[in-house]
Amino acid sequence: MIVIMKVNASSEAIDRVQQEIEKLSYEHHLIEGATRTVIGVLGNKPLRGKQHLQSLPEVADVMEVSSPYKLASREWKQADTIVKVGSASIGGDRVSVIAGPCSIESYEQTKTVGEVVKAAGGNLLRGGAFKPRTSPYSFQGLGEEGLKIINQVGKEVGLPTVVEVTDTEVMDVCVEYTDMLQIGTRNMQNYTLLKEAARTMKPILLKRGMSATINETLLAAEYILNEGNDQVVLCERGIRTFVDHTRNTLDVSAIPAFNRLSHLPVIVDPSHAAGKRHKVLPLALAGVAAGAHGVMVEVHPNPEQALSDGPQQLVPEDFKDLVDRIRIVAQAVGRELD
Amino acid sequence: MIVIMKVNASSEAIDRVQQEIEKLSYEHHLIEGATRTVIGVLGNKPLRGKQHLQSLPEVADVMEVSSPYKLASREWKQADTIVKVGSASIGGDRVSVIAGPCSIESYEQTKTVGEVVKAAGGNLLRGGAFKPRTSPYSFQGLGEEGLKIINQVGKEVGLPTVVEVTDTEVMDVCVEYTDMLQIGTRNMQNYTLLKEAARTMKPILLKRGMSATINETLLAAEYILNEGNDQVVLCERGIRTFVDHTRNTLDVSAIPAFNRLSHLPVIVDPSHAAGKRHKVLPLALAGVAAGAHGVMVEVHPNPEQALSDGPQQLVPEDFKDLVDRIRIVAQAVGRELD
Amino acid sequence: MIVIMKVNASSEAIDRVQQEIEKLSYEHHLIEGATRTVIGVLGNKPLRGKQHLQSLPEVADVMEVSSPYKLASREWKQADTIVKVGSASIGGDRVSVIAGPCSIESYEQTKTVGEVVKAAGGNLLRGGAFKPRTSPYSFQGLGEEGLKIINQVGKEVGLPTVVEVTDTEVMDVCVEYTDMLQIGTRNMQNYTLLKEAARTMKPILLKRGMSATINETLLAAEYILNEGNDQVVLCERGIRTFVDHTRNTLDVSAIPAFNRLSHLPVIVDPSHAAGKRHKVLPLALAGVAAGAHGVMVEVHPNPEQALSDGPQQLVPEDFKDLVDRIRIVAQAVGRELD
Amino acid sequence: MIVIMKVNASSEAIDRVQQEIEKLSYEHHLIEGATRTVIGVLGNKPLRGKQHLQSLPEVADVMEVSSPYKLASREWKQADTIVKVGSASIGGDRVSVIAGPCSIESYEQTKTVGEVVKAAGGNLLRGGAFKPRTSPYSFQGLGEEGLKIINQVGKEVGLPTVVEVTDTEVMDVCVEYTDMLQIGTRNMQNYTLLKEAARTMKPILLKRGMSATINETLLAAEYILNEGNDQVVLCERGIRTFVDHTRNTLDVSAIPAFNRLSHLPVIVDPSHAAGKRHKVLPLALAGVAAGAHGVMVEVHPNPEQALSDGPQQLVPEDFKDLVDRIRIVAQAVGRELD
Repeated sequence: MIVIMKVNASSEAIDRVQQEIEKLSYEHHLIEGATRTVIGVLGNKPLRGKQHLQSLPEVADVMEVSSPYKLASREWKQADTIVKVGSASIGGDRVSVIAGPCSIESYEQTKTVGEVVKAAGGNLLRGGAFKPRTSPYSFQGLGEEGLKIINQVGKEVGLPTVVEVTDTEVMDVCVEYTDMLQIGTRNMQNYTLLKEAARTMKPILLKRGMSATINETLLAAEYILNEGNDQVVLCERGIRTFVDHTRNTLDVSAIPAFNRLSHLPVIVDPSHAAGKRHKVLPLALAGVAAGAHGVMVEVHPNPEQALSDGPQQLVPEDFKDLVDRIRIVAQAVGRELD
Repeated sequence: MIVIMKVNASSEAIDRVQQEIEKLSYEHHLIEGATRTVIGVLGNKPLRGKQHLQSLPEVADVMEVSSPYKLASREWKQADTIVKVGSASIGGDRVSVIAGPCSIESYEQTKTVGEVVKAAGGNLLRGGAFKPRTSPYSFQGLGEEGLKIINQVGKEVGLPTVVEVTDTEVMDVCVEYTDMLQIGTRNMQNYTLLKEAARTMKPILLKRGMSATINETLLAAEYILNEGNDQVVLCERGIRTFVDHTRNTLDVSAIPAFNRLSHLPVIVDPSHAAGKRHKVLPLALAGVAAGAHGVMVEVHPNPEQALSDGPQQLVPEDFKDLVDRIRIVAQAVGRELD
Repeated sequence: MIVIMKVNASSEAIDRVQQEIEKLSYEHHLIEGATRTVIGVLGNKPLRGKQHLQSLPEVADVMEVSSPYKLASREWKQADTIVKVGSASIGGDRVSVIAGPCSIESYEQTKTVGEVVKAAGGNLLRGGAFKPRTSPYSFQGLGEEGLKIINQVGKEVGLPTVVEVTDTEVMDVCVEYTDMLQIGTRNMQNYTLLKEAARTMKPILLKRGMSATINETLLAAEYILNEGNDQVVLCERGIRTFVDHTRNTLDVSAIPAFNRLSHLPVIVDPSHAAGKRHKVLPLALAGVAAGAHGVMVEVHPNPEQALSDGPQQLVPEDFKDLVDRIRIVAQAVGRELD
Repeated sequence: MIVIMKVNASSEAIDRVQQEIEKLSYEHHLIEGATRTVIGVLGNKPLRGKQHLQSLPEVADVMEVSSPYKLASREWKQADTIVKVGSASIGGDRVSVIAGPCSIESYEQTKTVGEVVKAAGGNLLRGGAFKPRTSPYSFQGLGEEGLKIINQVGKEVGLPTVVEVTDTEVMDVCVEYTDMLQIGTRNMQNYTLLKEAARTMKPILLKRGMSATINETLLAAEYILNEGNDQVVLCERGIRTFVDHTRNTLDVSAIPAFNRLSHLPVIVDPSHAAGKRHKVLPLALAGVAAGAHGVMVEVHPNPEQALSDGPQQLVPEDFKDLVDRIRIVAQAVGRELD
């Protein structure tokens, strides 16, 4: 941590700040410039101290040198974490494909999609049972019935399943019927939910919040890791920007950033970022080219009839085409489709 | 709802889209331009239909003409809603001042601040008992003990209280010990929490999400209103932008927008947007000048010792000065300090 | 400047970086932490050196401690700069009102508005003669004819004038016919234009770019100050954000930031941020409440007939009302309408 | 254009708006809903009329149905435009590689890089002679001397050249010594520069502004096309967002958007978005995977010694590796390295 004193701070002011640093049991080190003094602070508990030092009147600013997360960092663990979900593995040198309908609408729809996903070479089946919807008047999902459907279809077609858990009340039933728990974008900083999900020891798919920084996302992951569960897959799904030609702006640069800063695998969800079907394919391939360990897309046998997010779901042929192209792009980055 | 056909769409394509509109039991109306046809769609359930029509291959885009919320709109209710919180009222022609420590740290700290707030003319006492923190290693609040402290201090100094409810598990205890429930920024789209809070029939202070649009914020309010609870105060607290000189960018233009589109009162929270004390006063006054029905600020008897958000908390003298200045600005916009 | 070494950098790596720092003729100072070493660098030419040090493989990051601008900073000059424009002064404890039509359309229109501005207590007359328009098919302004009109009207009603200079080719004619040169948002980083405008020694109204940070804006001002012209007024006019209820998001927090970091006066232009008339008044007052030294608004005798930006121009009665309210808000912040 | 009347607008109000539409010589068409009336407006000059209608008091909003640009649109020209630059062609089914140093620093540096670019299979040589720099104290480029160097090197290694033209004063000399003119990010809306560059009839590389929408970028291109010059290549180079882990956020979704809306080729510049070398490769590949017609990167024989933007320039071996990987990704999207 670096404490930057105000320009021309008096020696009394500098003394006082040094005493405050000592009260926090940190070591410190003075650097006197021509007009400004900075103090290097050495210690392990920067979050509490930073705030305190920042509030001192003699201090212009405090900069952190270390990252605020620990367990999620590459510095803590060099090797890539491989996350196991039933028969599937995510991370390392493989590229995984997670696909399924936005909402689980019926056994027939889910079964059709499940077979398409399996046949094309997909690795996990996803589907929404509880849908957090911006409007109270939108379709809210089939709930527990949906969970049972995807569980059954997953077993029939031979794919592990991932379903979003929207609140702690449905945690138990989600744990019973699904192989991996998804924490949605709106819940990335719902810390109660993060901790309870972590404690189930299920693998967790953590979506980046719509306006979360890399640091905030890794701190959300840290909540899970801190409970002793290191089976976390990060998911870049688009951020809020001024851009109006797309629903969210897929931040592909987050992928090399996560890969560099963290040992956790990161996948890309182009469906929500795109908002429209014709952008899903380019964004999925861009994600893999940028180093994503997987892609999550929405597939529907008949998107025009979908009860939610119809315009962004792929038809089965598009999905097969996507998987074939991912296979080629994966080679370019030294990876392989799982 | 306006359906915009692709340029040079064939008459068969137009027919097909019209049939789809009829299946949704909407009326429609054709407007044929030189190169492009648009179809006006009349009906009351646009959310479901919009998505469906947007997914049709012949359709270039679908624009909504009506707002997606209903109960929160000025069109539904012309007159300003006045929200009652114990002895206080928020909305209409008054400007309310809500103040207190960021975190409740002890009875003494809370009592000192409570007396300052009351003496300066404040209307509600706020304080954090459960703190949602970006890092798992930060101070997480005193919990139920904090609730009891603020409840006692509120009674002693004669101010109703508002406390953030962070999840459904602490709903009952929050209801027991506080007069108004706050839904925090990170929970604006935690729909389970919104609905459970609504059902307690307590007045609710709903903070805008860090990247929520006006529409999304009013739809979050709609979740509460839809449960039969119309005692909702909106709160603008800053949004995520590229700006790096401040923690969040206070969107003052949201205040006239909320005032125009909705009957619900809107207040401004400059503390979180500012991040630094010297910006709290200018932003608080800016909010009132822009038409806010109140201001919520953080006050601490000794911010340098605060366990959270020290740098942004006002000292007691600053708070008194702030209230005096608010009184003048309120006059300029035809309002009065309550 | 602080150079942050990678975690566990070897002593050879640290040596090498120190040598690079010495080659740049900087002094340096080592701080060794448990896992990470940082090097304090003392010197005056950080921009060149920063980049170089950042590119060294052993270096994790380089943080600047000093601001990159000098002449524009409060540290360089403590006292508020007062900018003189003919009979008017901008800055210090006064609040100035600059008003006029978006585009100069005719002598009659400009004369009518000029009289309204003068009568209500305005201090400067603004008007567009050369209009930078997003579309090549939009009205591009009256050009030199417009300049002559505003020059004549300014003299007749007794108000100094400000007009945007859009490129170096029209610099001479703008200098001849106007008292203050405006650099528009799109040109904030058009450095040739900044330098040529500076050399005319006219006072300059510099609008913040739509996505410019505080630092970038002050560096643009530095280009002008560096030519020996310190008569610069900054103007906050709204930034690009995800927000869709307004054209641009007025960043009121930039006002206290500019006031703290720089001695230059800062005004607010709510018209372009608002996009709609009913938001101009709230945003203008918010700007003054936040500490702006003035307000620039667009007035049109008949906005419905305006050749550009009709929806955001005030009618004369609105303008008089605005000035009256500004007078009250100015008191709340210890200022006076000039 | 769709005019949306306020809720419950009277029939007199509707009549009046219809008369205003007729004055503008547009046809119109009424759609009466239960609570709200909308009017479809048919005509070709929407920009002028839109503003006027929006300012009428009875009107809630006006939505545009057609795009504001014409010559740049796919609807105007179906087939991909191929831009010829000397021996090179950009657009259609090829992927082009444009590379060179950020700044031209010397003949030796430029020659070394030129040979690397040619040998690895690059198609154009880029280099900065006039550098628009955020700070007046940064290195501003070699100017005309730099132009002569790149011109000579281009001829020697057999690559056409592209150089940024920063203002109209250096247009003639840029035209003399270079094959393609680049309009930089900060100048995307410098309309004088756009028009003068267009009239030279040189091919133009138009970089998207840091906060420009797709529409604004295509309108900037429209300024060029409108002068009779259709040899325009668009360039996505990253936008301003809240994200702090990268200099700018590369908006890969803009690539499929441009490809769908316009016939002009679009390339990607990952160097400026990345800011750091280790992100250049992932972002370049992501751009090609998303459908870019080319990649522009910065190469320096010794980035640590570069006079500008050292941290983001590739070393020669990285560049060769990049070209090899682009070749594979191009296949995945049905394209070929030129």
